Parts: sequence; C-alpha cells; structure tokens
Amino acid sequence: MSESWTRFSRELYLEVDVAAGRARGRRLALERALREAVRSGRLRAGTTLPSSRALASDLGLSRGTVVEVYAQLAAEGYLVTRPRSATAVAEVPPWAAAPAGPAARTGPPRHDLRPGRPDPSSFPRAAWLAALRQVLATAPAESVGYGDPRGHAELRTALAGYLGRVRGVRTTPDRLMVCSGFGHGLGLLCQVLRGLGDDVLAVEDPGLPALGQLAETAGLRAVPVSVDERGLRPDLPPDTRAVLVSPAHHYPLGSTLHPSRRAALVAWARRAGGLVVEDDYDAEFRYDRQPVGALQGLAPDHVAYGGTASKSLAPAVRLAWFALPTRIAGPVTDLRRVTDRHSPVLDQLALARLVSSGALDRHLRRMRMRYRRRRDHLVSLLGERVPRVRPVGTSAGLHVTLVLPEDGPTEAQVVAELVRRGVAVHGLAGHCRRPPPAQGIVVGYGAPAGHAYPHAVEALVSGLSELLHA
Amino acid sequence: MSESWTRFSRELYLEVDVAAGRARGRRLALERALREAVRSGRLRAGTTLPSSRALASDLGLSRGTVVEVYAQLAAEGYLVTRPRSATAVAEVPPWAAAPAGPAARTGPPRHDLRPGRPDPSSFPRAAWLAALRQVLATAPAESVGYGDPRGHAELRTALAGYLGRVRGVRTTPDRLMVCSGFGHGLGLLCQVLRGLGDDVLAVEDPGLPALGQLAETAGLRAVPVSVDERGLRPDLPPDTRAVLVSPAHHYPLGSTLHPSRRAALVAWARRAGGLVVEDDYDAEFRYDRQPVGALQGLAPDHVAYGGTASKSLAPAVRLAWFALPTRIAGPVTDLRRVTDRHSPVLDQLALARLVSSGALDRHLRRMRMRYRRRRDHLVSLLGERVPRVRPVGTSAGLHVTLVLPEDGPTEAQVVAELVRRGVAVHGLAGHCRRPPPAQGIVVGYGAPAGHAYPHAVEALVSGLSELLHA
Repeated sequence: MSESWTRFSRELYLEVDVAAGRARGRRLALERALREAVRSGRLRAGTTLPSSRALASDLGLSRGTVVEVYAQLAAEGYLVTRPRSATAVAEVPPWAAAPAGPAARTGPPRHDLRPGRPDPSSFPRAAWLAALRQVLATAPAESVGYGDPRGHAELRTALAGYLGRVRGVRTTPDRLMVCSGFGHGLGLLCQVLRGLGDDVLAVEDPGLPALGQLAETAGLRAVPVSVDERGLRPDLPPDTRAVLVSPAHHYPLGSTLHPSRRAALVAWARRAGGLVVEDDYDAEFRYDRQPVGALQGLAPDHVAYGGTASKSLAPAVRLAWFALPTRIAGPVTDLRRVTDRHSPVLDQLALARLVSSGALDRHLRRMRMRYRRRRDHLVSLLGERVPRVRPVGTSAGLHVTLVLPEDGPTEAQVVAELVRRGVAVHGLAGHCRRPPPAQGIVVGYGAPAGHAYPHAVEALVSGLSELLHA
Repeated sequence: MSESWTRFSRELYLEVDVAAGRARGRRLALERALREAVRSGRLRAGTTLPSSRALASDLGLSRGTVVEVYAQLAAEGYLVTRPRSATAVAEVPPWAAAPAGPAARTGPPRHDLRPGRPDPSSFPRAAWLAALRQVLATAPAESVGYGDPRGHAELRTALAGYLGRVRGVRTTPDRLMVCSGFGHGLGLLCQVLRGLGDDVLAVEDPGLPALGQLAETAGLRAVPVSVDERGLRPDLPPDTRAVLVSPAHHYPLGSTLHPSRRAALVAWARRAGGLVVEDDYDAEFRYDRQPVGALQGLAPDHVAYGGTASKSLAPAVRLAWFALPTRIAGPVTDLRRVTDRHSPVLDQLALARLVSSGALDRHLRRMRMRYRRRRDHLVSLLGERVPRVRPVGTSAGLHVTLVLPEDGPTEAQVVAELVRRGVAVHGLAGHCRRPPPAQGIVVGYGAPAGHAYPHAVEALVSGLSELLHA
C-alpha cells in the first residue's frame, strides 16, 4: 500500500492513504485516520481542525469528501461542528487496550482426570458433519428463523421416543424442553419455582456444587440432604417442595438410589405436591448390568427429568433436555422465550438425525465398551498397587470416587501432590456443603483422549501409591 | 416379529416376544412387556406375580432370566420384592400421554412482514457448512470439551477485529462475551446490575417490548424514556444508572441518535458512573450512507455494546456478542459460568471462520443490496399507492415504521384487517409502555423469502390502499 503523509495541524501528523484507488477508498482512509487520531488521544479535545477546503487541498481530495468525513465523525461524536465556526475535536478520553476482566485461561492439565468429561477425541465428528450436511441440504428455509422455545419439534419427537426406549421416560414432545446443558434447564426450573413461591431446593450432599449454586443464583436456598450407599436419604426438611437427585448414578458417590427410596421419594412428591428434579447425567454408561430406568417413569407428573449430550457426545455441543410435568412445562417455556429464546436450530436438527438414524446408539455402544475397559483397568490397577484406597459406587458413568484411608495424608495433601505431578482430579470436600462423610478424590477416567489415558492413569496410580505407602 | 402370548395371572395377558433370538433379547422383551403392563395400569398395584419358576416355565425362559427381570423392575420401582413372599406390583398410577403445556404452534403467516427477521432463504448454507467442515477437520480435540464462558478465543479475536473495523467498537478479546442472542446477554447484564444494587433500566419508549420484559425478569424496573426523530431523549429519570439504547437505528422508529444526544449520553454515563447498553442489532444494514460508528467507541468503559448474528446471518444460529466495560466483564463472565456455561463451540468456530475469511463481509454486501432494493421498492410503492401513510426513519435495517393518518381507521383495525388478509405486521402500540406517540405499523421487509417478497408487499400495499381510501 502506498502511503502519503500530510501535515494538517501543528500538533500531529495524520497518516492517510490518499493514493488509495477510488474516491470512496480515500474518503474511508481519511475518516479512519482522523477517528483513530481522536481516539488515541493524539488529537486533543478542542483542537481546531483545518477548514474542509484547506484539508482537501492539502490531501488532494475533493472538498465534498472532507465535508462528508467531518459530518460522519461529528455524527459519531468525535468532532463538534458549529455553524459559522471551525470544526473541532470533541471530548473523547483516550482508551488504552489493556487486558481486562478474568485472567486468561491456562491450558488443560497434563493428565486430565477431572470427572464429568467424556473423551474429547471420541466425538463422532464425521457423523456430526454428515448429519449437519443432511440438515443443511433438506431443512426448509423457515428452520433458520426464530424457533420454538421448547426446541425444534423434530428433536423433541426423536427424544421422546429415545428416552422412552432407553431410559423408560414417559413423556410427549409437548412436555420436552431442549436446553443448553443440564444446568441451564435447572436454572430455568429454579426461577420458575421461585416465581411460584418456593424458596428451597433440597440438594444431595455430597453433590455437584455448581447445581446448588444455580439454585442460589435463582434466589432459592440450597438445603443439603445426606447421601449414603443407598443414595439420597429420604428425610427431606419439612419445608421442602423441590428436591434435586441423581437416582441412576449418584454424583460423586456412585450409588444407585435404592428401590425403597425411589418409592419414598415418589410418595413424598405425591403427598407434598413436590417436584423431584432428576439428574440423569450419565445413565447411558452402565457397565455391570442394564441401567435402572428413570425415576420419572414412575411419576411423570411429579418428576422433571433432565438428560444431556455433554457426556454422551460432547460438552461443546451444549444440548440437553428436560421432560417436564405438565404444570410447569408452560411457565418454563414462557421463561425460556424471554431469556435466550431457544437453542441453535441446526445443531438440534443434527442431533435429531443422530438419534433417529441410530448413529447415537452406535456411538454409545462403542463408548460404553471403551469406558468400561478404562474403569475396569483403573480399578484393578488400584486394587493391585494402591489397595488402601477404596473405590465406591456402581460400575457406571465416567468417574469413580476413591475413599482415602483415615490414617494417611489428608485429602488436600493428596490433591495437591497429584496437581504437582500434573494430575487433575477433584477432592470430595469440594462436593460437600457440610463436613464431608469421608476423605476422597473423584477421578474422571473419561476425560483423557485415548492415547493420553494410560499415561494419566499411570501418573495417578504411581502418585497415590507413593503417597499412601510413605 | 413373531409373537407368542402367555397367560400368567388371572387379570391379564402379557405379550412377550419369547421367540426373539438370544437370551438377552428375550429378557428385554419380558422386561419391557411387564413394565408397560404396570405403567398402563393393566397390572394393578398389589397384584401378585407368579413365582419366577412358574413364569419361566410358562414362557420357556430360564428361571435366572425371570429373576433378573423381577430384580430390575423392583430396582426401578415397578415391582415390590419381599423376602419369603411373592413379588407384587408396586403403586404406580397410570399416566395418559395427553398433550400438555403450550398449544402447538401454528405455521408462519402467509405474508410474513414481521420486523426483525432476515430473509430465511438467504442464509449462506454452503458457506456455513464449509466453515463447519474446516472446523471439524482441524479443531483440536479439546475444542469439544467445556469451553471458556466468554466464548472461544478464536471467535472473540475475530470479532474484536471485525467490530473495530466495521463498527468502530474499541475492545479486546478479553472484554468480549459471546452469547445466544442480544436478549440473552442483556438478561445476564441485568442480573449483574441487580446484583450490584441497581434497580432500574431505562428503556426506549417506543422500543422492543421483549427487552423491557427481560429487565423485569431479572428484577429491575424498566422505566420508559421518550424517543423522537433525534433518538432517545437524554433526560433520564434521576435514579437511573443504566440505560438501553439503539443509537444507530432506533427500533422501531428508525431514527439515528443525534450527535448532541450521543455526547449527552456519554457525558451522563461518565458523570453518574452509569452504564449505557448499546443495542446495535442491525447496523450492518445502512443504505443511504456509511453507518454511524458505535457509540461504544466514544466511551468503552461506560458502554456495553451488543451485536448479533440474528439479522446478519440467521436467528436460528443463536450467536451474539457483547463488548463489555472492564468493571462488569468479570461478574458477567462469572454469572455465565454458573448459568449456561457457554455457547456451542463448533458454531462459534464456524462463525469465526466466516468473519476472518471475509465470507461474512461478502454475504453482507449481497444482503445489503437486496434489502436496499426491497426497502426502496416498498417505500416507492407506498408513495404511489398509499401516500397517506408516512414512512419514518433512516434508510437502514430490515424494517420501516409507517405512521397512519389520524383521520383513518385505527391501528388495531389496520393490523386486524391485514391479518385477515394473511399479512403479518406489528402494531406500533405493542412497542409502547405509555400512550403511543402516533398510530402506526412496523413492517419487516426482510422476513419473506425472495420469491415470496413481491406477493407479500403487494398484499400489504393493496390492503393498506383499500383501508385508507375507504
């Protein structure tokens, strides 16, 4: 790019590419240069600009061009024009583009064994692209407009069938809501409950801390309820009208809600007119036997069932779903309409294709085998080399909680030492709202990519082994 | 599928495909049949089931299979097993799959002239697919994991450059937040303002009603401020600390905020420590001259600038962005992290490619020409055939507001008559929190697909012509 320089005031030089092709190009170059000069503070407030005639002559531009530029920048607030007096620079404080807000994120840990994450290298990219290609080739034009706040009918129909078949969920497309993650849907639910006069959400303790936080963000109190090897204890605080539970595979303890407690929970909901929010986050992954069906199937009018593609496909997809009781489906939809309207439609249609073509089932079969092998491998390795840690919970999901021996180093020491070795796991204490029932670590064997998995497990096992034999 | 029937209690027949291939298939078939029988109410609560031995013999299955099925269904809560007594049906009320929640949506109107919608047939499907193909071929594995709540760094970097170049926005990737629509980001902002102790958001009146509703959902009061042909009047209520404004192209009146008012608004924000929320929803579409730069460029630390892909690409994409002042970038990010975490990553990366490859610019050039032709055509047709309506606002965007003559039919009558003719437009009254300044209709000339546009405009113009000549 050729450059010409012109001096047009005593204070500074203005760099303008007046050689730039057409008149429009020259006008834009001048406009940009002047705007930048004002913004950067180089042209100070109050500075009088040369007359349009003078500047045009200096720059070899038509006077009309300069008049347009002055008018444009006056319209934007950078210049002040007054009848019968010279154009001047307006008051625009300089602004330094210093970094701001939250600190830049660091990369993922060397050995990523954080729970709740599927193997990122397993995302079925080819199937996802093929589904999107089909969607883009066939979806009618109106699919790219504003859509149904509950989600696209095609996905809701596919999900209603899928959830009935795979999880025993009893629902209809009308009662389903597609959202951007389990937490997103839970947040909407909590806001609706708040609006209906509730002020408590009973949560599992231990449990996923982010979910209690969501309830609190919505203005509810998150009241902890204990969990044991039979799952959530059914003695809810008396003022409870809503409870969050992970019946198929408790997070993080891995227990399955006992049949008597399932029955008690449903009986409570019927008696108290309460709502059970079922977090079915990883139920596609059960390795020892057939998964227990969804609690929702027992009481569709009292259970809001939530599932997600974050574990079965990938978190980045941001798709999840809730099967809602009739009485709250309407308010939740209304709230969704005024908040973020709906989830991206093309992604929804792609997921609908994966579900109805059987591609999701095939992917899940593959992943079930892979995760099962990983779990078995990890547990047997621990049994051999670190027998003092006790894995708890059923053979399911993407994580296992390891209870630490009482006479060894503290949980915090173990986590810190593992971090020092580049191994990221979560401590059990971070999942507890009250004093933890035990010391332990939550290990996600799903998170590492295939090639990284053996190294991550070796780093974990050798770290634990050294720590606990010391 | 072959079917065999077996009677196993006095109350009902159970349909089980016992001929189905492998043992596992038969087990599942029995399980499903029993579960369905309980759910449907055909097997009533308390009903005693035959012993596993008897049923196995009836069905020609192994006894172990039936034991497993009973255990599974007991775990799911459909059956009750007690030591030393027969398995019985648990209390599970029947549930009818009647339609629920909000009524099924009807299709789009015959002549869709609703404002704020781009031509759905213009969505660049090939470019979008090509971008996604590249993303899926090249993005590292960790891209499909949980991401940055502010949005993917690649998109934020592309947007920071794009917004600076095209809209004069001064920001850095660190201050940008990618969200799922302007309203989504505004809702988060309002929640943060509420958390910081604010309780008012001043909104333009007329204005987009959904935005005031969003503020109210977040617990703020939406206080109306008048708008005239120079845009928002700068006399804000004394307790105001935040104001929402559409400076480039007011919605729905189409005015551009006057330079003196831009200056006044910025001066107010500095003086009061206030926040200006800039709604730059359709600024890519200005037809008479260069668009006025973003207000944000004058005061990046006092203006939260929001833009969206809903008009420039398609609403279904659900991507928008905010350039935030430093002091609120952190709290907004924190809130995003606990609510819906972040927007879908693959879509973000696709948009980043469209921006940085120039494909978005090319698309916008094409669309600018198309919408400009539509607008000119509509306005000239109205001038010829319905001179009594007065189009107001600058030549920009996807809508034009038509002020109705004072001595003709009422706005409500006009809208109703147009609806009767299959023409969907919005009435001005619906955009007002106080008595409307005039009667008018808001016509979106972007919404119809290319082939439908001439018919839609003809239906509108002939309808108005008949109504106003009557």
